[in-house]
Amino acid sequence: MANAKQVSGKLEWRINVPDGTSNVIVPESDQLVNKAWLWLKGLLCGLVLKIWRFLYKAWNLGVAEPKKVIHGVKVGLSLLLVSFFYYMRPLYEGVGGNAMWAVMTVVVVFESTVGATLCKCINRATGTFLAGSLALGVQWIANKSGETFEPIIIGISVFLLASATTFSRFIPSVKTRFDYGAMIFILTFSLVTVSGYRVDRLFELAYQRLSTVAIGTSLCIFITMVFCPIWAGSGLHDLIVCNLEKLADSLDGCVGECFKDNKTKFGTEEGPSKRMQGYKCVLNSKATEEVMANFARWEPAHGRFNFRHPWKQYLKIGASMRNCAYCIEALNSCINSEIQAPDYLKKHLSDVCMLLSTNSSEVLKELVIIMKTLTKSSKIELLIGEMNFAVQKLQDSLNSVPNSFIGPTVSTLQAPNEANRETIPKTAIPSLMDVFPMASLVYLLIQIAARIEGIADAVDQLAGLAEFKLAKDENSKQKKPTNKSTSDKQDHEAMKTSPKPIVDPLIFSKWNSFFPVEEVVSDLEGTRT
Amino acid sequence: MANAKQVSGKLEWRINVPDGTSNVIVPESDQLVNKAWLWLKGLLCGLVLKIWRFLYKAWNLGVAEPKKVIHGVKVGLSLLLVSFFYYMRPLYEGVGGNAMWAVMTVVVVFESTVGATLCKCINRATGTFLAGSLALGVQWIANKSGETFEPIIIGISVFLLASATTFSRFIPSVKTRFDYGAMIFILTFSLVTVSGYRVDRLFELAYQRLSTVAIGTSLCIFITMVFCPIWAGSGLHDLIVCNLEKLADSLDGCVGECFKDNKTKFGTEEGPSKRMQGYKCVLNSKATEEVMANFARWEPAHGRFNFRHPWKQYLKIGASMRNCAYCIEALNSCINSEIQAPDYLKKHLSDVCMLLSTNSSEVLKELVIIMKTLTKSSKIELLIGEMNFAVQKLQDSLNSVPNSFIGPTVSTLQAPNEANRETIPKTAIPSLMDVFPMASLVYLLIQIAARIEGIADAVDQLAGLAEFKLAKDENSKQKKPTNKSTSDKQDHEAMKTSPKPIVDPLIFSKWNSFFPVEEVVSDLEGTRT
Repeated sequence: MANAKQVSGKLEWRINVPDGTSNVIVPESDQLVNKAWLWLKGLLCGLVLKIWRFLYKAWNLGVAEPKKVIHGVKVGLSLLLVSFFYYMRPLYEGVGGNAMWAVMTVVVVFESTVGATLCKCINRATGTFLAGSLALGVQWIANKSGETFEPIIIGISVFLLASATTFSRFIPSVKTRFDYGAMIFILTFSLVTVSGYRVDRLFELAYQRLSTVAIGTSLCIFITMVFCPIWAGSGLHDLIVCNLEKLADSLDGCVGECFKDNKTKFGTEEGPSKRMQGYKCVLNSKATEEVMANFARWEPAHGRFNFRHPWKQYLKIGASMRNCAYCIEALNSCINSEIQAPDYLKKHLSDVCMLLSTNSSEVLKELVIIMKTLTKSSKIELLIGEMNFAVQKLQDSLNSVPNSFIGPTVSTLQAPNEANRETIPKTAIPSLMDVFPMASLVYLLIQIAARIEGIADAVDQLAGLAEFKLAKDENSKQKKPTNKSTSDKQDHEAMKTSPKPIVDPLIFSKWNSFFPVEEVVSDLEGTRT
Repeated sequence: MANAKQVSGKLEWRINVPDGTSNVIVPESDQLVNKAWLWLKGLLCGLVLKIWRFLYKAWNLGVAEPKKVIHGVKVGLSLLLVSFFYYMRPLYEGVGGNAMWAVMTVVVVFESTVGATLCKCINRATGTFLAGSLALGVQWIANKSGETFEPIIIGISVFLLASATTFSRFIPSVKTRFDYGAMIFILTFSLVTVSGYRVDRLFELAYQRLSTVAIGTSLCIFITMVFCPIWAGSGLHDLIVCNLEKLADSLDGCVGECFKDNKTKFGTEEGPSKRMQGYKCVLNSKATEEVMANFARWEPAHGRFNFRHPWKQYLKIGASMRNCAYCIEALNSCINSEIQAPDYLKKHLSDVCMLLSTNSSEVLKELVIIMKTLTKSSKIELLIGEMNFAVQKLQDSLNSVPNSFIGPTVSTLQAPNEANRETIPKTAIPSLMDVFPMASLVYLLIQIAARIEGIADAVDQLAGLAEFKLAKDENSKQKKPTNKSTSDKQDHEAMKTSPKPIVDPLIFSKWNSFFPVEEVVSDLEGTRT
């Protein structure tokens, strides 16, 4: 089906395809050039696009978190300062050719937070000093034992110390605090003992290394603490506060989503709102919290935090928040389910569920205020009391459900009340199956309330450890001009006692012991060594 | 009441206390010595105890994970080898005094897994090479522009490059893969440009640095891959397999705990069994998984894994497992609660709940086998079918609950069946409140089954991506000597079709769409940038 003809000295292949169109085949050499050109163009365009995207991402990151840009500028500045040691002849001659150790120290030690930088500086200085002195001792012993034994002693000591120290870096207590120091210890020990065999000016080497490390570290500490310091402690504090806010938002969003009208539901179904998804940040922030708490311990007093601020307690708050977020996760999937509870049941429980979720998120919001202002709140106990009262109310509604909806109980069976039965929709024959999603939702809501109390306990412990002061009376006056904080307390006492006649106190205490939150939290902590 | 008397030249104070005993006060100097001695003894004892505890911990760690000891020995060995450059005169003269760069490279680059070591080696080599060439270029330009401008040009270039590169380390794509390379880039660039101003043998410096880095990295790669290699990929694989087993154990343990006799319960209540707590490891393993998957990408083919094994898919499996673990966490707290469902309800649902949990954990155990053998399983679909069948059975039981227990429905009300009512215990007037913990438990069990299907999907995707082969027929014959895999499939088909007449298919599809597991998983993934 293919024929060839001579056109202006070039061989052209024409293939007759059944449908009548014809493809002209260009000679191979032209084709190759064309292909290469296309390939090169594609490659270049792709490269430019990739670089452009990278720069765009970087720009966005810089705009979103200017602190990161500032950190970059700070590192540049420190390196510029340290390189003056080279440019200025007197300084250069003071430290000798080893000024490069100072450059290296700055590059390696400068971290984005003050705590991390301090941790590395102290580790580096200590590791260098300890290893240097130990190496000098070993070197002295090796020197005394003759030329044959010298390399053997040094070799064995390097092997043993390096092995043992490397292994020790796996031990949790070393790993969290002295990991970098252990590495520097091995490094310095090997360098000093091994070069000691050649370089005769051993003391000088050790001294120069120590002094240049000192110059580098002090420069780093100075720059990181003076120019726009970024504190790991403040970061951790802000993270916890932000996560508390997100939890409150998620809870509000989830329950609101569940009990709003069905008509509006379909309008917003295209994507779950970002506000509701906040709890996922809480689920994923464990590693960040641990790193930050670890570095925060090295930081001096800054802002409103003392030197020995109980940063470890923040981890406990974080653990109890994650504990609560697990439940919100389950609640979220429960709400996203397509099986909806029967409308009459929904209506019956809507108000009490909304009340409980509102009260729960109000406790969270009060905790946010406590954390933000670092003051004890006089309102928090009242709010927790209200939350527990809402739990009781919800239980009350549950107890009244079977009488009116699920079916008459034994007592009503003996004297059937026709008027009461009229309220049951005829189409819906209720079964446990229908009640199910609602039951899970209510269970999870009560569970969440219990776990929020766990968060409140953790925050309260923090308030005790960090000696938060009581909020000023003026503040509470501004918020509630008619009530004094003493009357608040009276309210709270009233709240504690008033529901007793309404709800069986036994049920209340049963429900309170229903959720062993503290156990769970301490268990979660227990998995961390 | 105090009198003094002279006894053999020393002044002794005697205080007469009303009850007649007398305290002899030793002179102050003796007291101080005593105190100091006690203090010193306490200090020494404390120190010895601390060291002893540390060693004990280290010993335990070494026994539990001998890989970590091996890693320590490997680092010691590499350092010993690299120090030969110093001991052997010809080698020393070949590399010059810069042999210490090789020592430093070994200490800094040698990580516990092959992937991490390779990642650091490649980063270090590339960073050094790129920065070295760029620095030479800048140095050349600076040299050409005269003595006044030279330090200015170098200073500005160091400042700009260091700032930009430091900032780029925050960009996620750089951070996960090239973080170390970026640091080495800054380090080398600063060292070469800044020392270029003084050291006239610039090319030599760059060459020596490159060659010593090459010696160090190749030695590290050789040792880490030849002597007992520890692969990040295998580690990640084992972690996922182990977590799957733990999930299955937790599920079995939780549900077993719930439905076992009350009498035996009190015997084991002093501490939750370790087996049940396995899901907590799953909750906390996100960070580890991410680090390992990141390093596994750098590793060559090893064991049963190819070079481009889909390690990223393991993160998805991990995410879906965590998703399931959230539910088990809620289930666990539900079971630990003190409110127990009424016994008749428990009995009614016990069998179906146990069946569902057994089937669910069998799916998990089959997934473990799939992962362990890296083969596709012919049984997994059958098992998932059985699990879904159990879900239907449970729903069935739920639908039958209200007729017999909760209270007569409208239909039975019209013709009260006295015989049926006899089965209701007279003492327990059932309400939604009583049904609650049971309802939540059942809900969570069904939710867990749905999420286990999510895990199975993720594993199935892995099987597709990594091209797992079908398990040999011999294997399935050995396990089930009476059934062939073909008959298994037939069974599965039967399982798929048979329940349809029993259960309303609409309800089934409703329940299947009840739990949008995949959405949740992809959402979870979405929070990772």
